[in-house]
Amino acid sequence: MNARAADEAARSGSAAEGTPEPAPTPVTGPRLVAEPRTDGVDAAVAAARRLVTALLRAGDGTGADMTEIAARLDAVTGRLTEKAPTVPERLAEMWRGEGVTRHDPVTGPENAIAPPLVLHGREDRSIEGVVTLDLPYQGPPGHVHGGVSALLLDHTLGVANHWAGTSGMTAELTLRYLRPTPLFEPLTVTGRQVSVDGSRIRTVGEITAGGRVCVTAEGLFVNKQLPRPS
Amino acid sequence: MNARAADEAARSGSAAEGTPEPAPTPVTGPRLVAEPRTDGVDAAVAAARRLVTALLRAGDGTGADMTEIAARLDAVTGRLTEKAPTVPERLAEMWRGEGVTRHDPVTGPENAIAPPLVLHGREDRSIEGVVTLDLPYQGPPGHVHGGVSALLLDHTLGVANHWAGTSGMTAELTLRYLRPTPLFEPLTVTGRQVSVDGSRIRTVGEITAGGRVCVTAEGLFVNKQLPRPS
Repeated sequence: MNARAADEAARSGSAAEGTPEPAPTPVTGPRLVAEPRTDGVDAAVAAARRLVTALLRAGDGTGADMTEIAARLDAVTGRLTEKAPTVPERLAEMWRGEGVTRHDPVTGPENAIAPPLVLHGREDRSIEGVVTLDLPYQGPPGHVHGGVSALLLDHTLGVANHWAGTSGMTAELTLRYLRPTPLFEPLTVTGRQVSVDGSRIRTVGEITAGGRVCVTAEGLFVNKQLPRPS
Repeated sequence: MNARAADEAARSGSAAEGTPEPAPTPVTGPRLVAEPRTDGVDAAVAAARRLVTALLRAGDGTGADMTEIAARLDAVTGRLTEKAPTVPERLAEMWRGEGVTRHDPVTGPENAIAPPLVLHGREDRSIEGVVTLDLPYQGPPGHVHGGVSALLLDHTLGVANHWAGTSGMTAELTLRYLRPTPLFEPLTVTGRQVSVDGSRIRTVGEITAGGRVCVTAEGLFVNKQLPRPS
């Protein structure tokens, strides 16, 4: 999808946000990302995500009353803040149980920063997700920000470790940018654990567009976790 | 600021979003990030940023009518979309002139994904910014996502190149994670161009919290740019 097609899709209401592709046939193994719900906070977050994209697509030349829009949004924020738990309570709630996170900035259905990327396990022990990114993720003209590619890949390598059965925290990550990564086109993000040697885990991944590799990642992870808050 | 202090600040309305610190004494040189405006789209984006944080802080247990909130947000999105330029028009507008970008996901005042990080040039040719991150940027419990650190550093290294006078695109980026990077505390993000050898630019940077280095970055950039759309 080029910029013009993206524009038409937005006007028809079909792709004002990063668009997850249909899931491939599932493979047996742990669930890799939280299942988005059509109601509750996930619904409001999905709407917030559409809003973030719409603001960037609109810019300052539309004549829309942005001060009034800001006031409307702040009214919603005020209502949410009034009813919110304290941050320590919320952290404890977020990290309860052993399931996948719902809050993270890559796959999290409760995080409007997340495109979101939906990752699936494959039979060869690698994982994969397809995502189309819009203007919020732009770096160079019409292309994905290099740091956004790093964000997607760091997270995907972490999830690939989970899929392979030995997780850890990132110790070192090397990204190589082979060609610009396009906005408005489906990107395939993959990850695969290569080796576990004592506490050292090596994992690789890449982002491809139209079958061509745009960015590769090599990660070294160490097999430890921060304690979950209680 | 720990999680409890962050919570109190949010309730008093003072820090529901990433909080840029006061600017240090300016040093002569090119402006490094766009100046945020208090009206226009920047005001609506700042409100959207507060909303993204409030949704994550609220979660699903507040009893707020999230379906109604989603409908309110979609009404705003609908109005913006109606008045928006086409994507090709918007891209041309975004990239007009030679100034700093307003759209990027790290410093951009028009991008609700950006914390935003405000960067300043220093006399030793390095650059620096201070930012406090909230729940949208969480990876491990109570800490910054490793990919978010990569995003901040990739961008900061690029801006350090601009400050030094020779810019380029990221070819390779290596991140080393020395200790977990805390949420809710001021983080100092720095970048410095180390060398220019033909078209190859080497640049380094780091994120510190309370004077201790959390993440380092080494980047190789090549002195070329993608064409700006017209």
